[in-house]
Amino acid sequence: MATTGPKSKALQTNMDVDYVIVYRFTDLDKQTAIVTFEKLIQALSSVGLATEVRNGGNHSVLVFTRVASERHLYGEVYRSRVKDWLHGVRTTAPPKDIRQALQVEPLYEAERLRIIYQLITNPITEGGAGITPKEGEWKNIESVFPLHDHAYNKDWIKKWSTNYTLNIEDLDEIRNRFGEKKDRLLLCLYAVILHLPRFPAAFGVAAWTLLGHFSWVYAVVNGLWCTIFTEYWRHQEVDLGVRWGVRGVSRIEVKRRDFKHEKQITDPVTGETVEVFPATKRLQRQLLQIPFALTAALVLGSLIATCFGIEIFISEIYNGPLKSVLVFLPTGILTTVMPILTGILTNFAHQLNRYENYETNAAYETALTQKILVLNFITSYLPIFLTAFVYVPFGSLIVPYLDIFSLTVRPFAEDEKQMHVPTSGFSINPARLRKQVIYFTVTAQVVNLGMEVIVPYLKRRGFAKVKEIQSERAAKNGTASIDVAANDPPEEAAFLTRVRSEAELDVYDVTADLREMVIQFGYLSLFSVVWPLTALSFLINDWIELRADAVKICVQMQRPIPWRADTIGPWLDALTFLTWVGSLTTAALCYLFSNDGLGPNGTPKNIQGWALLLTVFFAEHAFLAVRQVVRVVVSKMDSPGRQKERRQRYLLRRQYFEESLSEIRQLPTMGQAAEHIDRGTLEEEARQSTLRGHSVEDAFWARQRGWRETVQVGAYLIERDGMAGEVKKTR
Amino acid sequence: MATTGPKSKALQTNMDVDYVIVYRFTDLDKQTAIVTFEKLIQALSSVGLATEVRNGGNHSVLVFTRVASERHLYGEVYRSRVKDWLHGVRTTAPPKDIRQALQVEPLYEAERLRIIYQLITNPITEGGAGITPKEGEWKNIESVFPLHDHAYNKDWIKKWSTNYTLNIEDLDEIRNRFGEKKDRLLLCLYAVILHLPRFPAAFGVAAWTLLGHFSWVYAVVNGLWCTIFTEYWRHQEVDLGVRWGVRGVSRIEVKRRDFKHEKQITDPVTGETVEVFPATKRLQRQLLQIPFALTAALVLGSLIATCFGIEIFISEIYNGPLKSVLVFLPTGILTTVMPILTGILTNFAHQLNRYENYETNAAYETALTQKILVLNFITSYLPIFLTAFVYVPFGSLIVPYLDIFSLTVRPFAEDEKQMHVPTSGFSINPARLRKQVIYFTVTAQVVNLGMEVIVPYLKRRGFAKVKEIQSERAAKNGTASIDVAANDPPEEAAFLTRVRSEAELDVYDVTADLREMVIQFGYLSLFSVVWPLTALSFLINDWIELRADAVKICVQMQRPIPWRADTIGPWLDALTFLTWVGSLTTAALCYLFSNDGLGPNGTPKNIQGWALLLTVFFAEHAFLAVRQVVRVVVSKMDSPGRQKERRQRYLLRRQYFEESLSEIRQLPTMGQAAEHIDRGTLEEEARQSTLRGHSVEDAFWARQRGWRETVQVGAYLIERDGMAGEVKKTR
Repeated sequence: MATTGPKSKALQTNMDVDYVIVYRFTDLDKQTAIVTFEKLIQALSSVGLATEVRNGGNHSVLVFTRVASERHLYGEVYRSRVKDWLHGVRTTAPPKDIRQALQVEPLYEAERLRIIYQLITNPITEGGAGITPKEGEWKNIESVFPLHDHAYNKDWIKKWSTNYTLNIEDLDEIRNRFGEKKDRLLLCLYAVILHLPRFPAAFGVAAWTLLGHFSWVYAVVNGLWCTIFTEYWRHQEVDLGVRWGVRGVSRIEVKRRDFKHEKQITDPVTGETVEVFPATKRLQRQLLQIPFALTAALVLGSLIATCFGIEIFISEIYNGPLKSVLVFLPTGILTTVMPILTGILTNFAHQLNRYENYETNAAYETALTQKILVLNFITSYLPIFLTAFVYVPFGSLIVPYLDIFSLTVRPFAEDEKQMHVPTSGFSINPARLRKQVIYFTVTAQVVNLGMEVIVPYLKRRGFAKVKEIQSERAAKNGTASIDVAANDPPEEAAFLTRVRSEAELDVYDVTADLREMVIQFGYLSLFSVVWPLTALSFLINDWIELRADAVKICVQMQRPIPWRADTIGPWLDALTFLTWVGSLTTAALCYLFSNDGLGPNGTPKNIQGWALLLTVFFAEHAFLAVRQVVRVVVSKMDSPGRQKERRQRYLLRRQYFEESLSEIRQLPTMGQAAEHIDRGTLEEEARQSTLRGHSVEDAFWARQRGWRETVQVGAYLIERDGMAGEVKKTR
Repeated sequence: MATTGPKSKALQTNMDVDYVIVYRFTDLDKQTAIVTFEKLIQALSSVGLATEVRNGGNHSVLVFTRVASERHLYGEVYRSRVKDWLHGVRTTAPPKDIRQALQVEPLYEAERLRIIYQLITNPITEGGAGITPKEGEWKNIESVFPLHDHAYNKDWIKKWSTNYTLNIEDLDEIRNRFGEKKDRLLLCLYAVILHLPRFPAAFGVAAWTLLGHFSWVYAVVNGLWCTIFTEYWRHQEVDLGVRWGVRGVSRIEVKRRDFKHEKQITDPVTGETVEVFPATKRLQRQLLQIPFALTAALVLGSLIATCFGIEIFISEIYNGPLKSVLVFLPTGILTTVMPILTGILTNFAHQLNRYENYETNAAYETALTQKILVLNFITSYLPIFLTAFVYVPFGSLIVPYLDIFSLTVRPFAEDEKQMHVPTSGFSINPARLRKQVIYFTVTAQVVNLGMEVIVPYLKRRGFAKVKEIQSERAAKNGTASIDVAANDPPEEAAFLTRVRSEAELDVYDVTADLREMVIQFGYLSLFSVVWPLTALSFLINDWIELRADAVKICVQMQRPIPWRADTIGPWLDALTFLTWVGSLTTAALCYLFSNDGLGPNGTPKNIQGWALLLTVFFAEHAFLAVRQVVRVVVSKMDSPGRQKERRQRYLLRRQYFEESLSEIRQLPTMGQAAEHIDRGTLEEEARQSTLRGHSVEDAFWARQRGWRETVQVGAYLIERDGMAGEVKKTR
């Protein structure tokens, strides 16, 4: 099915399959397995999906599903579009006639797949089959996924790996294939490639060559650029949302399955009884985030600080044997302990988030993201913070106290002297900061990329190998039944093997990639003044990363379910926040290293506290002012998306207007009343006045009948007034 | 006409008059005067207004207008309501039948008056009479105003002067009478009376008695309260807007009459040709605001600083004769020069604003308000700033240089000594700051109130006196024609005199009162830590002020045209801004005077720059964090208004849904497709496959016909897999 049009052919057929369902019955006895299986098939066919079953290998079967009747599918499509309209996702209702509706906006693939997926997973009450993979009675449904369109994927990757940049059309295409949830990622990639590091990269290189490190000019330009980027992004997001007709989908709220309501109330708005959880109570629970953040900072912070101390001690004080080896001790500790701690904390974050008991999935995800980001910020930025704002300014005060770490090396040291601070006074290593920044922005990125691309590849190869061996051994034993593919019909064999391998792939998680980019952006806005080439390294990294991700999505992951999204939500706030903090750190760094990047050589004496703070204070407020201006300017910018939206609104309004115009036309206008004034109304008045006696008001209004009389009287008054004037003058 | 219902009677009749139009022809010769007059009357009657003319006294006539036919008016009303609906001001369209529509929501007076006023002033193209008071061909139309309803006003003032507080119903009533533009003011009063100073007043008294001056506790609580107030207000505004059905009226944009377009383009949205002025160009022009603000600060600042210097010099250095008199010299200078400067700058602000060439009245007003506020802030807060952050910390460094001001007193001094700084070292007057704050928050307020209430009163009395004398003299001369009232018909005499006096009243300007309150709020948030009783004084002042304003509106001003508004717009931003700055100043003051309110006694030595800055820095960020929290909490709060809005939305949606449901019902569901799967579709498939040859896909899907077969095959596979498993196990 995975082709450009809903029902055309692709190079390599997908057998018209919409979704493949993996049913693994390892932990069930045959009987229950068969019963559940029957339930599954019945459920599927009950929502009009045709099914085929094939052997899936090691205790599993593959269920292939496709829509039994396109005509009926169109019904679902139309219904979902009407629903969108009712929720204000689309400003105009789809045309009444289905055929026409589908001609006006053809059913693109992501929409088709989304709707079918909902058909499978929605609760039966909402007309779905109520199949919830890995949950409750369906816990044996291992996964539900669409098949990759290899022909298309090949083109896609080819295209991306050959073109330098992406344009909006490319994105449109992707979106039609993968849906807009991916566009969260895509929007990001888009931003990254089209906007993010190119300019600062160029400028960074210039700054590096011309201005050197810690240049004010670079700091200002970089800060300004980060601001513009974030605000422009905020603007662009809306535009893309409209362009892809997903603006406001986040308003269609999906209730979380495990939301626990406290009481039932009748909704004052709809009058229905709804299950609610008091916001105040949630707020109280949310307050737990503060201690959580503090603990995280404390735990991770102390770990980082310790390793930091040890490292300094070994690298800059200790001068005994094995130094070259021992230097890697702290790194070792970090790489072993850090993941464990982060794991624990992340787990805790999840628990806390569940405890906060959010009503909708969106809210839940947002809250979780925020928590995770806190952890990420600490682990990614704290080390550099320590170097920049503790080691560099206070180094020589602290170092003497590092003796405590001597025990880490005592076993190796020959004598005490090797482990004591040179009395000659210790001088800090000014290169350390830059080295560290370079490490985080280059080395770490490269490693990371490797982990992302190569490791999974090897993993897959490994698995394949294992299988091979297994089947060989099986062959030896002559039990043909072990070889899954054995009795596949020859014309399907290739296809089935492909499906089986796709079934074993992981599910793609967009947040990982997003997080990576936000963190990256953080390095740029917070510390790039230390090493202006940061942006360049990111440009290169992202250029590769983008392609790598494309490959990942196409080859290493199951094809994602095409959900819709209209914002990158909390990530955007994170960007804004990082830009803000950047204005502080950059200013501070610039001040600290104003002596041609040497820095206060480890003694706070060389720093004027008030000057530093004044600098930061000024920088921050300049930033806030500039941001305000940028916001105003950006808000003034028009965009095709916004125009489209406004146009639709306008047309809608005009339509309404023309509808109500008919009545309005029949309405009397005051103008029409005019002619009555002379005759009609006045006679009528006269009549009324005689009826209900001669009241003061009637007398008042009866003096001048019709406007002509008024004019005459007025003229007369004016005349007389003039006279009076002359009389006066004569005196 | 001015009564609770559109057409019921009031104690003292207004003769059913809707609007009075003053036509003054002093500068015209009779002929043109008469011609224009005729034009006027024609224009009025052309939109269905009945007219009566009476003598207005000194070269003017009064034109009384009323609606000729209620039936026709209802047409206009309905039309305007439909328009509101189309612009999204009201979520529901008014019922088709007019009578019904007017029963559901009766025509309240403000609406009636608003519509009639638009009828008079709207351009002819929009179905109005196109009469523009004081402008162009209508420059002789001095004013167009409705008549006061004295009976109602009496009740109103009585009520307000007896009740301590106002509740929302009172406001509803006012709004029905005066319309919602006034509710800008009213909302403010409302806020002020119901929320603003009561709590801080109470707390302030407590703080004053228990904590003394410059208490941290007070600072924090006060800051917190200001934040809550501002945010809560933002929330409340929306609620009232909905309650009064004006939410979004600010979106109905009225094009400014003297907006100069640069080029004509075809609107991409509506396709009509519109006159535009490039935003970029406006932005450039707006940049002029920066030099403007700077100049203003410089000019006013230097004036204030000079007077400040002189005052200090005279009061604290000079000790010659006439000191007691000379002390008032600076005040004298200020009170004479300041108004002139402010006048010039205000004038300049107006010019700049015109130059910025805004498209809509709303935008124009907002921009102007901002400019005026800048001036107000400088004049109101700078003096205290100087004392707090220049005189107190640096006093003894500056004072020696104040000799230059000696020339102001030289003529009076007997010898040089009297004009020289005591070598004994000069010590600043620590009480000065508090005195100043008290002056600005009490004395100034009282004076201001006096100016507002008493002066206009005297003015009116004065005019009356003059008239009397004139008429007496006229009587002596026996030129009866001078006495306007002479040939009024007796039954109208009283009424006409009243109208003539109302015609001479000023037009009420809400911004003045708003500005006053914002400035007041500023003192509270910026400096109240110096003297915690500030809030109390404001509470008293506002209590009186509110009544005074009520009197002003009813007695001293023409009855205002009831416009609509849904926000206090720029004023709200001003409040937010002041709260923010408050967090800085308060912290700084608290630090400076941390030594039991004595302050650094004029020598910066006693101040730790970095500590001060750190305090401020911390305070500001604490404030920003807290504000964020408050915003979140407030945004969670529900309100009757919001519920109403949501309910209407919901009903609307359900209505649409039910409409489209009919079609949807006819749509096929996938569920219906289910039964086909076994028979229909599959046979059809078989047929097709025979038609278009046996393709791979067909083969694939043909293996299992119908879900029962799938189940059988599945069961078989599961069975076999089990076996295979055993085979393995046996090994």
